[in-house]
Amino acid sequence: MSISEATKKQGGLAGVVAGESAICTCGTGNGLNYYGYAIEDLAEHCEFEEVAYLLQYAKLPNANELKEYKSKIIASRPLSVELKAMLKLIPKGVHPMNVCQSAVALLGTLEAEKDDFSDQDEKIIRLLGVLPSVICFWHNYINGGKEIDFESKEDTIAGYFLEKLHQKTPPAEFVKAMHCSLILYAEHEFNASTFTARICASTKSDIFSAVAGAIGALRGPLHGGANEAAFGLISSFDNVEDAIAGVNDKLANKELLMGFGHRVYGLGGDPRNAVIKKWSKALSNDHKLFAISEAIENVMKEKRPSLPPNADFYSASAYHFMGIPTEYFTPIFIMSRVSGWCAHIKEQRANNKLIRPSSNYIGPEPMKFIQIHQR
Amino acid sequence: MSISEATKKQGGLAGVVAGESAICTCGTGNGLNYYGYAIEDLAEHCEFEEVAYLLQYAKLPNANELKEYKSKIIASRPLSVELKAMLKLIPKGVHPMNVCQSAVALLGTLEAEKDDFSDQDEKIIRLLGVLPSVICFWHNYINGGKEIDFESKEDTIAGYFLEKLHQKTPPAEFVKAMHCSLILYAEHEFNASTFTARICASTKSDIFSAVAGAIGALRGPLHGGANEAAFGLISSFDNVEDAIAGVNDKLANKELLMGFGHRVYGLGGDPRNAVIKKWSKALSNDHKLFAISEAIENVMKEKRPSLPPNADFYSASAYHFMGIPTEYFTPIFIMSRVSGWCAHIKEQRANNKLIRPSSNYIGPEPMKFIQIHQR
Ligand SMILES: CC(C)(COP(=O)(O)OP(=O)(O)OC[C@H]1O[C@@H](n2cnc3c(N)ncnc32)[C@H](O)[C@@H]1OP(=O)(O)O)[C@@H](O)C(=O)NCCC(=O)NCCS
Ligand SMILES: CC(C)(COP(=O)(O)OP(=O)(O)OC[C@H]1O[C@@H](n2cnc3c(N)ncnc32)[C@H](O)[C@@H]1OP(=O)(O)O)[C@@H](O)C(=O)NCCC(=O)NCCS
Repeated sequence: MSISEATKKQGGLAGVVAGESAICTCGTGNGLNYYGYAIEDLAEHCEFEEVAYLLQYAKLPNANELKEYKSKIIASRPLSVELKAMLKLIPKGVHPMNVCQSAVALLGTLEAEKDDFSDQDEKIIRLLGVLPSVICFWHNYINGGKEIDFESKEDTIAGYFLEKLHQKTPPAEFVKAMHCSLILYAEHEFNASTFTARICASTKSDIFSAVAGAIGALRGPLHGGANEAAFGLISSFDNVEDAIAGVNDKLANKELLMGFGHRVYGLGGDPRNAVIKKWSKALSNDHKLFAISEAIENVMKEKRPSLPPNADFYSASAYHFMGIPTEYFTPIFIMSRVSGWCAHIKEQRANNKLIRPSSNYIGPEPMKFIQIHQR
Repeated sequence: MSISEATKKQGGLAGVVAGESAICTCGTGNGLNYYGYAIEDLAEHCEFEEVAYLLQYAKLPNANELKEYKSKIIASRPLSVELKAMLKLIPKGVHPMNVCQSAVALLGTLEAEKDDFSDQDEKIIRLLGVLPSVICFWHNYINGGKEIDFESKEDTIAGYFLEKLHQKTPPAEFVKAMHCSLILYAEHEFNASTFTARICASTKSDIFSAVAGAIGALRGPLHGGANEAAFGLISSFDNVEDAIAGVNDKLANKELLMGFGHRVYGLGGDPRNAVIKKWSKALSNDHKLFAISEAIENVMKEKRPSLPPNADFYSASAYHFMGIPTEYFTPIFIMSRVSGWCAHIKEQRANNKLIRPSSNYIGPEPMKFIQIHQR
């Protein structure tokens, strides 16, 4: 990546190197690799659990290791009585990202990490297992008052989530697509939520505090929330013509087109996009919606070649074709990215230095204090 | 502040300017000012609420404005039925920082901020009012099962907190000291937790998500948790001689002395220290403990002049002399710093740019993918 002085001046730490990391190449010119493995290979050949293992232990598991890892994740699915009680307190209409943040923060009280972090790997497995249960329990409870159980024949996070959300066995194709999507979202260098997790870890805080912090950053539409927002854009149009006109209008009005642009990727685009687009196309059971997506992509390609679609754009329609309600798009991102966050927390802890930048002061000169009754 | 290239190389964004801010001078050579007012003046003449108002609205309130502001904060004290129910689920022995993070995250579901943030000022007032109630409700419930109410004649956060924690009217001197401590802790530029809050805000996330994230960073002993850890150090010694010998041993073993050192302040030291030390001395009802603190300070002054005591060192003993259990030292920091966090969230939102740095890749070269059964 070439970091221009101009980019630096823009602020937001654009192009500023904030530390070293061995986990993922992003913008280095070698494509997107996790610990050296190309996401295209991982997305085609792996279950999400293999990739989560790779991120957790810096190596791909063999068949036995994967089996054991998966059984530990399965054992981590159930919610405690207290966690269920809390989820039942949260009413309908609430953003599920806030629900997830609350659940992870509460886990930090009910199942605290040890002070010396010696159980961090167990806590990571707990988070991987429990997050789908959190989302599906709350979803089913607020929509009809059903308290779901955590038994399932599905042995992967992808299958378990889809089954528990909809309370029926998911088609094999949906499970495969979900694996792919979870793999693509798993890790992405020093993005805003991962960097948040690293800052929390850098003060020597616990893993639940750090992951809850990361969820707080992921929620926003400029980051994880973009997949929801992208679906809002796509579904706001009735047909291809409206979409073309609408996108042109928005560009003229300098509005943000959600699902396009990326801090790190330039003209070359986001390598995750091609992979998820294939799945969106394969799953498409609403040809108009897919055609509208492509039309939006084409207008953008023509008018704003420097803003190619990012991973969020076709994830949105892929999830929609699987029948997933829009408000769960970003929580799915959590289920996946928690693996990347935790890899970064481990890496930060292994060679820690407090992350604490400075600011450029632009405020008032020193002022004489005036007592309240003279003001 | 002079930022040496050497410091930059150390990592942790040391000396890296991550943005502009008008809120506070820290390390600019003009002392520590909030919106131009010296902390020494604020700490001597103000109630904490005046300073919270200053941070929220960038001006000191007049008497009427302060009165109205305080009555809104008082009205924000009660916990909802749901929040009480959640707090009652959290068992004894849990770190109250995780309790506070859970409560703030849950508020994000029960009392969500509007999507356009038009109610952000109301939410800030809610957080200021409710946090002391959260801490005191949980504390009294787990220690004896008492469900406290939220009525009080104390019209300030300082007085209310002390009354509700101990369930008795606090001495006027304690209330004054608590105002001072809350004022000193209120704001400190781009420290780790504030920067966390700004990153969350930069994705356009909501204020509760951002504040819960900040709590996740404050918890660690290299940041807010240092006041607790400093008390652990001070109280580990039986007398002045042991303290002198013990600190020398720790320095020889390259152990961290908690409550000393700061990313931004060098030899000149942390300007908050002198102010809080006076209060610690004035409140001291355990002369041995105060003498041990001073002995530790003196050894450090002699042996490590570049590591002067920070705000946390004498805060610890001041809180102890007020009878506050150690595990609440960092939650008090939240009650105060939430004002600074929210000032930064407002500032970030007013001129937003996603905060997203890059990393220096030090991982493996691209590797050929191997199918699971060949591994
Ligand atoms: C991701 C994103 C925040 C990166 O932004 P950044 O590195 O801070 O760059 P900026 O927001 O400063 O964008 C630079 C310019 O491109 C424009 N731009 C960036 N993304 C745009 C988009 N999606 N639609 C329209 N214009 C866009 C900006 O308005 C800005 O224009 P200006 O120079 O006229 O002010 C930005 O592209 C965006 O907001 N995208 C939409 C949200 C999204 O999809 N997020 C998910 C990312 S994986
Ligand atoms: C605050 C703090 C994290 C800032 O640290 P930083 O800017 O990252 O600086 P470093 O930790 O790299 O410290 C530089 C050197 O001073 C030493 N040092 C820093 N603080 C020290 C302390 N409190 N006691 C002993 N040695 C200390 C470091 O070990 C390091 O030594 P080295 O060069 O031999 O490795 C650090 O001073 C610290 O850990 N203090 C104790 C915790 C604390 O009080 N935190 C509250 C801050 S308000």
